[in-house]
Amino acid sequence: MPYRHYFEDAVGKLHSERRYRVFTDLERNADQFPLAAWRGPQGAIDVVMWCSNDYLGMGCHPAVTSAMMEAVSRFGAGAGGTRNISGNSHPVVQLEAELADLHAKASALVFTSGWVSNLAGISAIAGLIPDCVILSDELNHNSMIEGIRRSGRDKVIFRHNDLAHLEHQLRAIGTARPKLIVFESLYSMDGDIAPVAAIAKLAKTYKAMTYLDEVHAVGLYGARGGGIAERDGVMDQIDVIEGTLAKGFGTLGGYLAADTAIIDAVRSYAPSFIFTTALPPAVAVAARTAVRHLKASASERLLHQRQVAHTKAALTEAGLPVMDNRSHIVPLFVGDADLCKQASDLLLERHAIYIQPINYPTVARGTERLRITPTPRHSEAHIDALTAALRDVWHQLDLPTAIRYRARAAE
Amino acid sequence: MPYRHYFEDAVGKLHSERRYRVFTDLERNADQFPLAAWRGPQGAIDVVMWCSNDYLGMGCHPAVTSAMMEAVSRFGAGAGGTRNISGNSHPVVQLEAELADLHAKASALVFTSGWVSNLAGISAIAGLIPDCVILSDELNHNSMIEGIRRSGRDKVIFRHNDLAHLEHQLRAIGTARPKLIVFESLYSMDGDIAPVAAIAKLAKTYKAMTYLDEVHAVGLYGARGGGIAERDGVMDQIDVIEGTLAKGFGTLGGYLAADTAIIDAVRSYAPSFIFTTALPPAVAVAARTAVRHLKASASERLLHQRQVAHTKAALTEAGLPVMDNRSHIVPLFVGDADLCKQASDLLLERHAIYIQPINYPTVARGTERLRITPTPRHSEAHIDALTAALRDVWHQLDLPTAIRYRARAAE
Ligand SMILES: Cc1ncc(COP(=O)(O)O)c(C=O)c1O
Ligand SMILES: Cc1ncc(COP(=O)(O)O)c(C=O)c1O
Repeated sequence: MPYRHYFEDAVGKLHSERRYRVFTDLERNADQFPLAAWRGPQGAIDVVMWCSNDYLGMGCHPAVTSAMMEAVSRFGAGAGGTRNISGNSHPVVQLEAELADLHAKASALVFTSGWVSNLAGISAIAGLIPDCVILSDELNHNSMIEGIRRSGRDKVIFRHNDLAHLEHQLRAIGTARPKLIVFESLYSMDGDIAPVAAIAKLAKTYKAMTYLDEVHAVGLYGARGGGIAERDGVMDQIDVIEGTLAKGFGTLGGYLAADTAIIDAVRSYAPSFIFTTALPPAVAVAARTAVRHLKASASERLLHQRQVAHTKAALTEAGLPVMDNRSHIVPLFVGDADLCKQASDLLLERHAIYIQPINYPTVARGTERLRITPTPRHSEAHIDALTAALRDVWHQLDLPTAIRYRARAAE
Repeated sequence: MPYRHYFEDAVGKLHSERRYRVFTDLERNADQFPLAAWRGPQGAIDVVMWCSNDYLGMGCHPAVTSAMMEAVSRFGAGAGGTRNISGNSHPVVQLEAELADLHAKASALVFTSGWVSNLAGISAIAGLIPDCVILSDELNHNSMIEGIRRSGRDKVIFRHNDLAHLEHQLRAIGTARPKLIVFESLYSMDGDIAPVAAIAKLAKTYKAMTYLDEVHAVGLYGARGGGIAERDGVMDQIDVIEGTLAKGFGTLGGYLAADTAIIDAVRSYAPSFIFTTALPPAVAVAARTAVRHLKASASERLLHQRQVAHTKAALTEAGLPVMDNRSHIVPLFVGDADLCKQASDLLLERHAIYIQPINYPTVARGTERLRITPTPRHSEAHIDALTAALRDVWHQLDLPTAIRYRARAAE
């Protein structure tokens, strides 16, 4: 094979920068979530997952798993085609209606991932508006950046959650030129929340369209799990809401909810939607079950927030550097890639606790952290064990107890 | 909402060009594949699907569906995270080993779709080779074109399956500059097959790397279902093999198989791999079951080819314009978007046969067609009914019996 050395060099660079990633081999246990079997050097041992994005454990909820099993037996394993060519299953159609209703929009469109929904949505929407300029929060997720890049449109970055800076940019562009503001409601690494209502208001003033990623909020916030925009009573002020089925809803896939004209245009023009196999009917059934369940039931959300509060309180009390926010994300500051990896390894090997180190490029260098995500299924005993284990690891590795970084959050 | 008219205009344009797509609402029936329930104006009626890309019916195979159900009950519905952060399930690790073995490569990497695997694979590989130029077959699939575009590298198009033109381009670039040849083994709309061995030989002569999309061939060709490269005995001559889990293997997902250095580099550098939730463990289990089954069993492939031959013979005998090829795809020439849609509607409404019209942008204007995909589960009675129905539709709409187009195939 020619050129092998280029790939070896690229990987070698990661090793030398101490950010080569080794994936932890886990086997989730649906009955005993958040437990998983970890296959390490000593064979498989049970560990407690403390960094799952199945935030509410819905992926292991008996209603969801049993609906999925029944759907596999009825419809088979896959979709068998693209949405246009033989893959448009009735369960996906039903799921889209459910999601449109969740966000009080006329239509919704499902993709095989949230990543693809952002790529497709942002590029198609901005691409169909002549001379559109995109205003993008500087901490937007990679999938949004890829959508912006793919649109080929001009891009203006505004400082993270900074209303004054956004307004400054909007004014500089002027009302005549079409504008699309692209932002997240809940930034998943710091856990800070955007001023959604205020951004929507600015959009109105300056005649901009709004595109909001609610990936880390859907299912978790709002009376029916519609996200931060629902919680804040401003869903109707946002033009396009994007979400995932793979976090709060515990399955797989992504979606857009918006006006029918927008959805129909994305459906018809986005190659990343058109030229790929549809989501399996069984996954759509599972996702819809989770969405419906969380529309009607608030108990998971309440228990979730309670266990988050208990976890934050216990860790803060233990003198650990909890990065402050008002969400369900509990980041612990470390500030060094190598130490972060060592802390994670110690937790796993010595304490049977799994928390992945979060290093560059997921967060900026110097802000490496352990990102903890309590779920409603983490018990008080789990929280106590976590606190003791972290205390031990902080002591062993002499990790910082103060935070040398603050998210530029403006909640 | 500002700018609504842009979206309405974009959709209106499709209507006026007669290529607005309406998705057929289908409910697959796993026990009775290729039957599905179609929800049309008269409620749900049973139809025979003749355009599924679940080519072998593996998505409805009892071994696959039962393995998937068991996996849902053990591991839950979703992965719960990205590959790096809590989503790296043991079944995905096992699936990757199975796929590496299938293609006799050292490593494999799984994505949530074939579309994403091409985007990630081509962009990361070409991106890591300084000054790389990509040689791309003119009929390459959208996902490959997106990968090329995302790489930002220079691109040279060679005429479809044209060895002389490819050699001309290779010579013009010269041996000094790094080159990546990107092509498919089986082009799914015409069903023609690339001269894989000859392209690999040219690559060697001119020191180019090869990237082969086997999406429409894996599971279907080769002694163990490794695709056209396996059938032709040249898997080891191809540097990177890309495939899907969603067609011959009946589930969902895509993959790359290659040298470990390449796979590790893509794994570490491609944002479309890194920043998205992993494939659900249950989908990985289902896919692995299909791959293992088709490694050991040739009966599905034999029966598939037999029913394809019977279908081609019956339609040709009936005087229908079957576009010639040596694969499992049976395209019938129509040559007009509107007539193609009408033919499809008549088949569905009058004959309970589902064959999606294939129009621009999936194929070039003027080459619109009905694309028929027989499976091992289509009986002789199904073939007879199809032939009679097509005869009727051809007569009703006075459709062409001669092909006014030939794929520039060089098998
Ligand atoms: C803000 C944000 N948007 C989109 C995504 C992609 O969603 P998915 O995992 O469904 O691809 C993620 C993370 O995965 C994310 O953090
Ligand atoms: C040649 C080719 N490559 C890749 C893909 C994408 O594969 P997937 O459906 O798994 O996304 C397709 C069609 O879907 C295809 O025809």
